[in-house]
Amino acid sequence: MTQIAIVLFDGVEELDFAGPWEVLAAWAAQFPDDRVSVFTVADTTDLVTCAKGLRVAPDHTWETAPATDVLLVPGGFGINGKLEDEAFLERLRAEAGRGTLVTSVCTGALALAAAGLLRNRPATTWWGRLDRLAELDATIEVRPDDRFVDSGEVVTAAGVSAGIDMALHLVVRLHSVERAREVRRYIQYDPEPPV
Amino acid sequence: MTQIAIVLFDGVEELDFAGPWEVLAAWAAQFPDDRVSVFTVADTTDLVTCAKGLRVAPDHTWETAPATDVLLVPGGFGINGKLEDEAFLERLRAEAGRGTLVTSVCTGALALAAAGLLRNRPATTWWGRLDRLAELDATIEVRPDDRFVDSGEVVTAAGVSAGIDMALHLVVRLHSVERAREVRRYIQYDPEPPV
Repeated sequence: MTQIAIVLFDGVEELDFAGPWEVLAAWAAQFPDDRVSVFTVADTTDLVTCAKGLRVAPDHTWETAPATDVLLVPGGFGINGKLEDEAFLERLRAEAGRGTLVTSVCTGALALAAAGLLRNRPATTWWGRLDRLAELDATIEVRPDDRFVDSGEVVTAAGVSAGIDMALHLVVRLHSVERAREVRRYIQYDPEPPV
Repeated sequence: MTQIAIVLFDGVEELDFAGPWEVLAAWAAQFPDDRVSVFTVADTTDLVTCAKGLRVAPDHTWETAPATDVLLVPGGFGINGKLEDEAFLERLRAEAGRGTLVTSVCTGALALAAAGLLRNRPATTWWGRLDRLAELDATIEVRPDDRFVDSGEVVTAAGVSAGIDMALHLVVRLHSVERAREVRRYIQYDPEPPV
């Protein structure tokens, strides 16, 4: 199985995780032969209160979660507390160290930067925190105009809704363009912002 | 307050509700002077297990929910059970009857059709259920190519991700183009599907 873990924490921005969740979990559900599993993971299984108030029950704690192939760190105001949570940062480093593909959406990139995982890499984040990303690690080549940046071992996405685009890229990378197109079709992702 | 209720039920498709939730709750949170409140409502406050397995705690039951100005019915395979749930359909009719703006995303439109709310109206739904929509009510002018259809008292959106576009339209309709642009900017909704 390809095990994909989506991190939850109090103050996580809803669409940061729900967009990629939909893309990746739709892939897993519609194509069971691809053997993909997507789950949420948090420090405890207590209900998480998201940035805008949605309350979600995590599937796993770090202790019960399966060994992870892809880790996705969303953003939201709750990420601020994670930037000085050494246990959390060490976990990100340990995952990267054993070959997990580490990804972020929105200000989740700030945690990756704080963990040192974006050192000498191109990366992006939510438009309102591009300066903060550069402050956290001056070696990052900040890309303000990219929807997502794939730097090999690490993939970062721009703000909130950009996680949908990044997740489709992950389907391409982990499977194929064809499969990503099928998932895109399933979620009818032919965006036409009305404003 | 403008009270916006998003309906949850077992088998609800995650992005169907989480996309509009993000748009509308971001509007509410970033612009408190607009006096908007967004909440989830379900038959009970038990955890809802969504179509792809995400578990969410509803904010309200129908009994505890504030009087609603806008009702949003998402889709997902769980909607099938609602099409013959007379209490649910009657609730939709009652809301429409007292002037609530009734909206749907994806196959949520099937419940609106079953309740008779799309009679002689243009409407849309997820691409895989356009025929089913026409079957439920032959008077519906099915619009397969529209991202969303605003028919006045009722607004329907196409599949899954189309709820984001519809929700931005609701911000336009309930407030202004300017405000919708600000919310769009906040969620960095400049989609670039990579496939």
